[in-house]
Amino acid sequence: MLKKICGRLAGRSRQAASSKAAGTKHHVSDSLGKLFRLFLETQSKKMSLLVVGSVAFDAVETPFGKCEKMLGGSASHFSISASFFTKVSIVGVVGGDFSDEDHKVFDKYGIGTHDLERIAGGKTFRWRGRYDYDLNVAHTLETQLNVFADFKPKLSEESKDARLVFLGNIQPDLQREVREQIPKAELVALDTMNLWIENTRDSLLRTIKGVDVVIINDAEARQLTGIPNLIKAARTILSWGPKALVVKRGEYGAALFTEENYFAIPAYPLESVFDPTGAGDTFAGGFMGYLSSQEKLGEDAMRRAMIFGSVMASFNVEEFGTERVRRLTHHEINERFRAFKRMTHFEEIPFERVEQAVR
Amino acid sequence: MLKKICGRLAGRSRQAASSKAAGTKHHVSDSLGKLFRLFLETQSKKMSLLVVGSVAFDAVETPFGKCEKMLGGSASHFSISASFFTKVSIVGVVGGDFSDEDHKVFDKYGIGTHDLERIAGGKTFRWRGRYDYDLNVAHTLETQLNVFADFKPKLSEESKDARLVFLGNIQPDLQREVREQIPKAELVALDTMNLWIENTRDSLLRTIKGVDVVIINDAEARQLTGIPNLIKAARTILSWGPKALVVKRGEYGAALFTEENYFAIPAYPLESVFDPTGAGDTFAGGFMGYLSSQEKLGEDAMRRAMIFGSVMASFNVEEFGTERVRRLTHHEINERFRAFKRMTHFEEIPFERVEQAVR
Repeated sequence: MLKKICGRLAGRSRQAASSKAAGTKHHVSDSLGKLFRLFLETQSKKMSLLVVGSVAFDAVETPFGKCEKMLGGSASHFSISASFFTKVSIVGVVGGDFSDEDHKVFDKYGIGTHDLERIAGGKTFRWRGRYDYDLNVAHTLETQLNVFADFKPKLSEESKDARLVFLGNIQPDLQREVREQIPKAELVALDTMNLWIENTRDSLLRTIKGVDVVIINDAEARQLTGIPNLIKAARTILSWGPKALVVKRGEYGAALFTEENYFAIPAYPLESVFDPTGAGDTFAGGFMGYLSSQEKLGEDAMRRAMIFGSVMASFNVEEFGTERVRRLTHHEINERFRAFKRMTHFEEIPFERVEQAVR
Repeated sequence: MLKKICGRLAGRSRQAASSKAAGTKHHVSDSLGKLFRLFLETQSKKMSLLVVGSVAFDAVETPFGKCEKMLGGSASHFSISASFFTKVSIVGVVGGDFSDEDHKVFDKYGIGTHDLERIAGGKTFRWRGRYDYDLNVAHTLETQLNVFADFKPKLSEESKDARLVFLGNIQPDLQREVREQIPKAELVALDTMNLWIENTRDSLLRTIKGVDVVIINDAEARQLTGIPNLIKAARTILSWGPKALVVKRGEYGAALFTEENYFAIPAYPLESVFDPTGAGDTFAGGFMGYLSSQEKLGEDAMRRAMIFGSVMASFNVEEFGTERVRRLTHHEINERFRAFKRMTHFEEIPFERVEQAVR
């Protein structure tokens, strides 16, 4: 099997090929993209989203290819995804090895980096992982926390004004510190992982009490509550305070639980998944980014946000790291949004023979 | 934990209690049910569905209860479920231990049993299984094929006129024999299992080529094709001949693949699953039963059939064996059908900020 590698050259040649194929269309969407960023700049108060999380260099090997170094981390995947919908800023930390060119990726998508601290004498967080044919399971080969080990989120005054906040998967004490600095936020969401559920459960529960939306995967929902039935587990999590729970189920889609309702969608059907790294954060970025673009943050908007989150995640897994998402156009995003409608629609015609028989 | 047991007494007292609670309503739906059966009798040519499969006595133990003997088998679960929508008949075999009272269950639901052979000197097929807390996995403790070991399906002339046929999970040579005796059937569907995929693969593939719809679970789709990706596996199965593939995914719902389209739905959210035995056949019964009630068997009808199949399966798992489905009313079925619409609906409003920015 021919395996793919990642990297700038490979990325460029593919991008060039796709530009050529798309012809002028690509240029049009580029211009629309720039106009969109300009529009967002002027809207920063109304449409502002803050994410705290990791910015990392990932090394990934899958059965289909290998990449020695690419931009990764929860805040990177989240913010690039969210940038298609809203003005988003990162709170995080990188090392001296995070070059100007690396930084330019965020600039290109209009992502705010005032609060992305750079520690010249340190090294950026690194993660190395491998996926076997069961792409649902990531095998961590190496984790170098580096500058992330002593990360203390520092928020500028602008960041404290954020309307929506996403507390990416970091130590729950730090999540709570950030949350408490933005008491006026209209909606705060949180992600977490098995490590924090096992080792810092009490702190995590306190953090969960203070957020509006929890966004986790189904295994985490079960582990967090100790309840094998997902529906019961969801009720339990909602009873702790959050008004909504989003459960990511990988190839099986995602579900939204609120006190009153249940909403569930399948995943976009992909014939091949290339690299699932960052899919969860890309989902969260689409979900929160879309919500941030909406005036009303009710359940109707959340349902559409679930679709946009799934759309973004479905693109994310098609290539290494953030490569595919970085080439997206709004047209492609909306096309896939419409595909979700087509693949979930049925006519609401109840069974009626019995009434006919009676007449 | 208080564990439930099954059996007539338990069943009766529960039914009595629920009749009392429902008051006259219950009687009304009983009368409607009778009228519905009468109506079906007069419609047997237009609305006829045939199932070939097992009729069995099951013994089941779950973490929540235990049942030493209850009606089971693919044809039983399928036909009782389908009887809520159409006129259904069974091709199968039972032993001398299958009492008149056992037989009356089928009569009550208007299920045709002309081709349910009774071998007085033999014993009915018996299955004994156990579920642990992971209710997705059935542990078979004992299988006594008994009269089923030498089962040769025999079709009456009336059965050969069936408009729709379901080939339940039996040896694929037998499935093909039945299929070939009903060449004029408008739609033939098939179920199978790992045993036949492993031991009689060639025969199974020949049988699949001759049917319109394959209804299996996701593990079976992967095993049948040797392809881990479900979407690719589905394309492969469709390339063999069937025009539709239904994939049952347990707690994750179900998906319908056709050459052109993909349709996927979640499962009904249940806080507790009591006994999953027969859920797949109950799904198939709802799916085929509903289709049988429709004049046009196109994709629109199949999508609704997916919902009715899921509705019936969701009731099935709430109690032992066929107990819950046997107490169902059309009102309850339609209520849950509508719940599926509520839990999958979202407004088709694409993301539009970029257009606003351009204006």
